[in-house]
Amino acid sequence: MPDQQALLRDAMQRLQLTRDAFADRIGVTRRALDGWLLPEDSKQHRAMPALVARVIEQFGGAAPNEAQPSDLRARITRPNKPHLLSVDVFERESVEDLLRVAKQMEPIARRQKVSRVLEGAVLGNLFFEPSTRTRVSFGAAFCRLGGSVCDTTGFTFSSMAKGESIEDTSRVISGYVDAIVVRHPEVGSVARFASATHVPVINGGDGPGEHPTQALLDLYTLQQEFERLGKSIDGAHVAMVGDLRHGRTVHSLIRLLSLYRNLRFSFVAPASLEMPPELVALARERGHRVTEATTFKEGLKKPDVLYATRIQKERMVGEGLETYPASFRVDREAVAKYCAEHTVLMHPLPRDSTPGANDLAADLDRDPRLAIFRQTDAGIPVRMAVFAVLLGVDHLVARSLRDAHWISPERLGPRDIRR
Amino acid sequence: MPDQQALLRDAMQRLQLTRDAFADRIGVTRRALDGWLLPEDSKQHRAMPALVARVIEQFGGAAPNEAQPSDLRARITRPNKPHLLSVDVFERESVEDLLRVAKQMEPIARRQKVSRVLEGAVLGNLFFEPSTRTRVSFGAAFCRLGGSVCDTTGFTFSSMAKGESIEDTSRVISGYVDAIVVRHPEVGSVARFASATHVPVINGGDGPGEHPTQALLDLYTLQQEFERLGKSIDGAHVAMVGDLRHGRTVHSLIRLLSLYRNLRFSFVAPASLEMPPELVALARERGHRVTEATTFKEGLKKPDVLYATRIQKERMVGEGLETYPASFRVDREAVAKYCAEHTVLMHPLPRDSTPGANDLAADLDRDPRLAIFRQTDAGIPVRMAVFAVLLGVDHLVARSLRDAHWISPERLGPRDIRR
Amino acid sequence: MPDQQALLRDAMQRLQLTRDAFADRIGVTRRALDGWLLPEDSKQHRAMPALVARVIEQFGGAAPNEAQPSDLRARITRPNKPHLLSVDVFERESVEDLLRVAKQMEPIARRQKVSRVLEGAVLGNLFFEPSTRTRVSFGAAFCRLGGSVCDTTGFTFSSMAKGESIEDTSRVISGYVDAIVVRHPEVGSVARFASATHVPVINGGDGPGEHPTQALLDLYTLQQEFERLGKSIDGAHVAMVGDLRHGRTVHSLIRLLSLYRNLRFSFVAPASLEMPPELVALARERGHRVTEATTFKEGLKKPDVLYATRIQKERMVGEGLETYPASFRVDREAVAKYCAEHTVLMHPLPRDSTPGANDLAADLDRDPRLAIFRQTDAGIPVRMAVFAVLLGVDHLVARSLRDAHWISPERLGPRDIRR
Repeated sequence: MPDQQALLRDAMQRLQLTRDAFADRIGVTRRALDGWLLPEDSKQHRAMPALVARVIEQFGGAAPNEAQPSDLRARITRPNKPHLLSVDVFERESVEDLLRVAKQMEPIARRQKVSRVLEGAVLGNLFFEPSTRTRVSFGAAFCRLGGSVCDTTGFTFSSMAKGESIEDTSRVISGYVDAIVVRHPEVGSVARFASATHVPVINGGDGPGEHPTQALLDLYTLQQEFERLGKSIDGAHVAMVGDLRHGRTVHSLIRLLSLYRNLRFSFVAPASLEMPPELVALARERGHRVTEATTFKEGLKKPDVLYATRIQKERMVGEGLETYPASFRVDREAVAKYCAEHTVLMHPLPRDSTPGANDLAADLDRDPRLAIFRQTDAGIPVRMAVFAVLLGVDHLVARSLRDAHWISPERLGPRDIRR
Repeated sequence: MPDQQALLRDAMQRLQLTRDAFADRIGVTRRALDGWLLPEDSKQHRAMPALVARVIEQFGGAAPNEAQPSDLRARITRPNKPHLLSVDVFERESVEDLLRVAKQMEPIARRQKVSRVLEGAVLGNLFFEPSTRTRVSFGAAFCRLGGSVCDTTGFTFSSMAKGESIEDTSRVISGYVDAIVVRHPEVGSVARFASATHVPVINGGDGPGEHPTQALLDLYTLQQEFERLGKSIDGAHVAMVGDLRHGRTVHSLIRLLSLYRNLRFSFVAPASLEMPPELVALARERGHRVTEATTFKEGLKKPDVLYATRIQKERMVGEGLETYPASFRVDREAVAKYCAEHTVLMHPLPRDSTPGANDLAADLDRDPRLAIFRQTDAGIPVRMAVFAVLLGVDHLVARSLRDAHWISPERLGPRDIRR
Repeated sequence: MPDQQALLRDAMQRLQLTRDAFADRIGVTRRALDGWLLPEDSKQHRAMPALVARVIEQFGGAAPNEAQPSDLRARITRPNKPHLLSVDVFERESVEDLLRVAKQMEPIARRQKVSRVLEGAVLGNLFFEPSTRTRVSFGAAFCRLGGSVCDTTGFTFSSMAKGESIEDTSRVISGYVDAIVVRHPEVGSVARFASATHVPVINGGDGPGEHPTQALLDLYTLQQEFERLGKSIDGAHVAMVGDLRHGRTVHSLIRLLSLYRNLRFSFVAPASLEMPPELVALARERGHRVTEATTFKEGLKKPDVLYATRIQKERMVGEGLETYPASFRVDREAVAKYCAEHTVLMHPLPRDSTPGANDLAADLDRDPRLAIFRQTDAGIPVRMAVFAVLLGVDHLVARSLRDAHWISPERLGPRDIRR
């Protein structure tokens, strides 16, 4: 029974306990423990009672109250305001700590492990404008920590239609749930929602405003890709192309990337869709190099990352553009010309696959550099991390893990060949 | 290790067991138990094996089948009809028993404890008209007992659109779920729904008909507020103001309050929006005093409770009123004039916060007498109690409690300073 | 304490273990076990410590990894394509195996037992067209295995409205959930959805295409009814009446029934709504007898099963029929004339109960032959079986069962008197 020894050794190591302390912890004598740890062919070897194995397995060998809460929550929120409304709350260290928590969630996100650390908790997933993927991503992340989800969708919230203020709605919902995700078409509305409650509110996108978990999952993806490639974010060359004026996701990502050192940003956008000057200024103030251009040829010089923005057709007419310029189509040909062997290709999705849309093209789908689905996958561990930190259970996750019993695909889809 | 003794004492007390019986229950000798209960500095003191502590913790020290079901379910329902359709089923004793069950739910509703007593059960939360807050409140309550929720929302139920009868829909859904909440715009439709099933159906509001859990949470709030203030419902002075004609919530609340003794009701409504005469008659028949008035000045004499109704604008035109009279605005000034130091201020919410609505005013939001959010909060324990009683698990809740591990706000929002 | 012996004997039998092996498994000596198994009045009788009882109860006496996965999953799916898109994947043996798994789910579907075998797993329940009952049935089935559900409903999926391809949507959702049910108005769209993912996709109906779980639950119902009546499917006489041209459910059911031997099919349809010739041909090729008719009188000769199709009014005009012919109304009179004492009456529901609809009539509702609600009830165990098999946990269900603690109706509704 070699598993017996592996089980015990693993538990002692995880808990960083000596044999004496461990024996004490699980309620057996040191001598019994020693007997179980001897090789099977030893005369003193003893079989460990199944009862003990189960106790160890079930409790992860530790009483849950022994782990120490991290101070990350305190560093990214204010007292009685445990919200995540903007990426502006992050320092480099705190954002890296958050991504470290996300990394810990990977075995759960990949369905190898199960955690029930939020069992009993309820999420209010309030979507005042439709965004199915974001809603499902937040919901699934909360479920994977053991919690339950109450959804609202659609353009109207029935009591708001009756004249209720956003503050009243917030306070009422706070009495029902333990955390709230709000998506709303108006800038600032999520902050108003948060002002009226002490329950954690997460901004799931407020129109042209912020969408902090998208920026975090972008950064997480970038970090994972670079780790695989043996690169680091410090000193990287990040190109952003497309509609940089309206692209909420690139705006927030620049704020996060600016926390790192010595980056080179290339912003490539059609005239009238350029990056807002205040973001260019911010990047420069923090010591990064910025170049701007209006064509791929001029602006794309084999970057480490090419981040293509989502095309928002409804904005095109307003900007005097009938269609999105074909020269901004990111396809196999453009990538061959302007990217390097290991350029990471990103896009916030959804991408427009209708003919003539000139968005990120499907002919790249089998290109291993294309990280777009690794990017959406990252939504789960990152949102789990945000929930865990804001609800103060991040330190309990590791030892709450149990094996998942169902079969999961090793790779999630035919298009994600390198996961 | 003083926790060891506390743990054991607490478990024995909870179970009301002697040392002998307790030792027997957890499968140890009386001598071992005695050793664990001795002070740490005693020579005979023994450390309790962690194994035992975990068993006690996990099972709450009791086999679940030892608690006895209450007969409350039998008193408020008929055989094979385990529904809650109306407040008319309650006697004073049964309504007080239900509120007692709700009180037991408070540690869960306040997120200090977790129960999984309905783990495996599924709620059908069927909303044939939108009412987000009510839907989320029922859903969250069911989740907090460990169950899962299947929602339907919106005006149409797809199979009903295909000509299916309400009875067929009811019977089909009964095969999928363990309890059903129905909200429907037509009076009597929920009762029709209930007639076709033996699965508990809870009326979540049927148009101008009943909404029994709202009345129960109102009563629960009132009872909690009075308890805090050292008052009792018997003999209390309850004022109801506003649109008393259409206010479904006050109608049901009067029915419940009439079960108590010797109340004084003040009904203050604009002409044409008076309390229906049958409810006035009911209160009088049961021995309560009733006065009616059309102005605050005339009708509001420092009551123990001021219950303001929700303004239903869509009804105003039909009643020949273009706007709701400004003299019925309940604001700081009105409260200063007509209420007492400890008048409890209630409102079923949502309140209309648009300018000129003349509903309950936001300038009262920091007034400690304002109980409106304590009132909505009460929806969780009260609805949990209803589910627990109708599904016959109310007696199992107390011993199913475990600690919640996530961080919860002590007070739920800046506006609820006295929770 | 006779329960002690029953508990032990039951556990040993379930695990098919000798006393020695069982004692070893639960970590006690053989002698202790023997003492617990002796009659209470025996001198050697010993009380089993509660601790041991709880361990047995909790773990079902078995480590979950000891059960062997079945090969049914491999027989009905292709490698990396663990989907259920059509009934065409079934052989007679595999469909019978699946129904055997469904049968195992009955104690859970009837709310006597609870399983958490999919705890931690998340279902994406994607309904691109409304079908409340089917959505709730899939959702409740997944919950009853311990999983969580993320729903999307309505005609649009917001990212698809932005031009996203069905393949992108599929791949993104695969990163969030462990299994996906898709209902979509267009034939073939669910297969496209499945082509882009390795996560199990279940066809929940693709317009006039397939709806395999409906066919499976029909077959399961038929099998259960026949078992009760002492009949077998081989050699049975199955009549299908109504709109056989558009009836997706009867088309799939014929494919499944054709896997059996020597059936007799009677197809009775108004002119222009006849059974498609390829299905008639299929049944004949497989050696079954087929007769076709246009009136009940001519075609209905006391069959073992009468399967009435759902009337799809929207199709009537297109076919030049203003209303559905009254002569196709299946009511008490028609059943008295054309059916036998034990003819099983089936219908896929919903049925049209509006006056003049000429669908299956409500005057049959108390007829014990009417199996329509037993049919919808069957959706739960059958869909549980599909999930369990595709996710590879069917072999774990039996030993994961725990008692349900809430009260369930013995019969689900007044209309299902013989359940």
